[in-house]
Amino acid sequence: MSRLEHTLELVAINSVSRNEAAIAALIEGRLRTNPALDVERIGDNVVARTTGLHATRLLVAGHTDTVPGDPTRSRVDGEVLRGLGACDMKGSLAVMLELATEPTVRPVEVTWVFYAREEISRGESGLLEIAQLRPDLLEAQAAVLAEPTGGVVEAGCQGTLRVSVELAGARAHTARPFAGRNALHRLGHLLHRVAAYEPRTASIDGVDFVEQLQAVSVGGGVAPNVVPDLATCTLNHRVAPDRTKDEAFAWLRGYLGDCVEPDDILEVADWAPSALPSLTNERLKSLADLSGQRARGKMGWTDVATFAELGVPATNFGAGDPLVAHHDDEHVTRGELDEFARVLGRWLA
Amino acid sequence: MSRLEHTLELVAINSVSRNEAAIAALIEGRLRTNPALDVERIGDNVVARTTGLHATRLLVAGHTDTVPGDPTRSRVDGEVLRGLGACDMKGSLAVMLELATEPTVRPVEVTWVFYAREEISRGESGLLEIAQLRPDLLEAQAAVLAEPTGGVVEAGCQGTLRVSVELAGARAHTARPFAGRNALHRLGHLLHRVAAYEPRTASIDGVDFVEQLQAVSVGGGVAPNVVPDLATCTLNHRVAPDRTKDEAFAWLRGYLGDCVEPDDILEVADWAPSALPSLTNERLKSLADLSGQRARGKMGWTDVATFAELGVPATNFGAGDPLVAHHDDEHVTRGELDEFARVLGRWLA
Repeated sequence: MSRLEHTLELVAINSVSRNEAAIAALIEGRLRTNPALDVERIGDNVVARTTGLHATRLLVAGHTDTVPGDPTRSRVDGEVLRGLGACDMKGSLAVMLELATEPTVRPVEVTWVFYAREEISRGESGLLEIAQLRPDLLEAQAAVLAEPTGGVVEAGCQGTLRVSVELAGARAHTARPFAGRNALHRLGHLLHRVAAYEPRTASIDGVDFVEQLQAVSVGGGVAPNVVPDLATCTLNHRVAPDRTKDEAFAWLRGYLGDCVEPDDILEVADWAPSALPSLTNERLKSLADLSGQRARGKMGWTDVATFAELGVPATNFGAGDPLVAHHDDEHVTRGELDEFARVLGRWLA
Repeated sequence: MSRLEHTLELVAINSVSRNEAAIAALIEGRLRTNPALDVERIGDNVVARTTGLHATRLLVAGHTDTVPGDPTRSRVDGEVLRGLGACDMKGSLAVMLELATEPTVRPVEVTWVFYAREEISRGESGLLEIAQLRPDLLEAQAAVLAEPTGGVVEAGCQGTLRVSVELAGARAHTARPFAGRNALHRLGHLLHRVAAYEPRTASIDGVDFVEQLQAVSVGGGVAPNVVPDLATCTLNHRVAPDRTKDEAFAWLRGYLGDCVEPDDILEVADWAPSALPSLTNERLKSLADLSGQRARGKMGWTDVATFAELGVPATNFGAGDPLVAHHDDEHVTRGELDEFARVLGRWLA
């Protein structure tokens, strides 16, 4: 099978977050065809390691889940594979499986990590599950996280802050709204302000990070003739590595200003930390050199931050255009897969 | 028992819309204690009629349901009864039951109507159910609808238009929102415009009607890290009797302007028609005189419009302050119940 066909096989398996059992079983079975690998299944995660005596161990990791969507609409369209998760990140997973199962002898030990539940709250992350149960499996001198980067080394990552908002109002009959206060109208002012956000750019070690602020869910409503007394909203703020969680939350509170009043609730629902670029690391610098492209800062949050916490210098590097991840038109091309396989293969050699 | 205690008995029964079986059973049993009444149960509605030979028949109607809330928090507090539905409209129901079951001989025939499911979509209305199954039971020369009016005749009623809105966007990763379009941010602009609405007042036959526009529900959200591609919203527009459904909808479309684009959905979900004031009717004029207060226009939609469609001149007149209906602090006072009982009793005499 071609690389596009191998990718299609993975894309056709529904692996929306928390439904990774089937894809993990396929990956585990494929890895076990290589007798040189020590394969371990931990929950819905799979880790495969060479166990030779080389002093250097490199790690390559990817998540197996996708955001919600319809996995049955995938198809190969000439040189392009279209479908849910094609780019984020089953194209890279297919290349990882190919390199992991080929009989090549390498001058380094390699650890291959396939993990579940990356696209939802970090507390559920399969990588954290491995880190908790078997931290020894994640030890390495350097790591590549195969998130889609278009074949460019994307250094570090931004933090991601999820904030819950509850705006209070007072119920009344909709024919006499002046007797109450419409919490949804208050939500309108808040969303209006969020929509007016102008991204801040932070330059760190010559790499730029652009922050973002988005509303990701809203809710509210009592009955068709009742002025609602509660509006809920969840905001997602992408934070550059020069700000801590507390600094980012304080900034957000200030930015929302009088849209949030003392009786309302504004609280952190989730935080995943940022990671500074690790381009001073020799192994990661050589990856950037092999890619032939200038490194840039990673805009999205990724588990590069988790590896940073574990003391493993890591960077994002994978096949596929990050701009189409989580997008209706998600896809990956044959050329992107070939280039990723070439650079990753040479890095491990 | 006092009038407040009789009201408390009704308020303590959970009768949130579609749960009126228990309160209908209590009302039916109470009415059957008066042998002069012909009592009929139609679904969860109850109709009781005197069947003498007087030429004039007057009708008094009230709904038995409440908006959602907690019926266990009701209590008598001195001269005030507090609780869900106290004002809208179990206080008036208690007085109706009292007058219907007292052994008074009257110079007119009287029809008492207790009906279900008024607080939800009009298509489910218990009054329409009676009108469909037994229209003969609703024939009368004039009708009082005992909605809370603070003891004032509130003439006619406004129409109520419920409109569904779906705003489209394009999905993207929240770290790269510029690759998509956030439908919730678009919703923010729409809610902002709705919140800025300035009510229009229509003067008809010397009675004023003040229109309103309120958002009553919102929804949207895909996943914590996805820019949502769909936002939903329901609007409630209260329409003066000088505008038809089509005129009101056309006005709303124009008012929302560029907040709604060609690919979005804006459609009528529900419409209940308005009713012009019927103060030229002698029976209703005499009710206004008995009340001792100047009639005014009804701001909320009420089944006065249903009676108008059935050819029965009707007006709103009941106990309790309409400003606290559907409000956390809903209540009715002993004085309000006494005054309602006095005026209604004299009208039927």
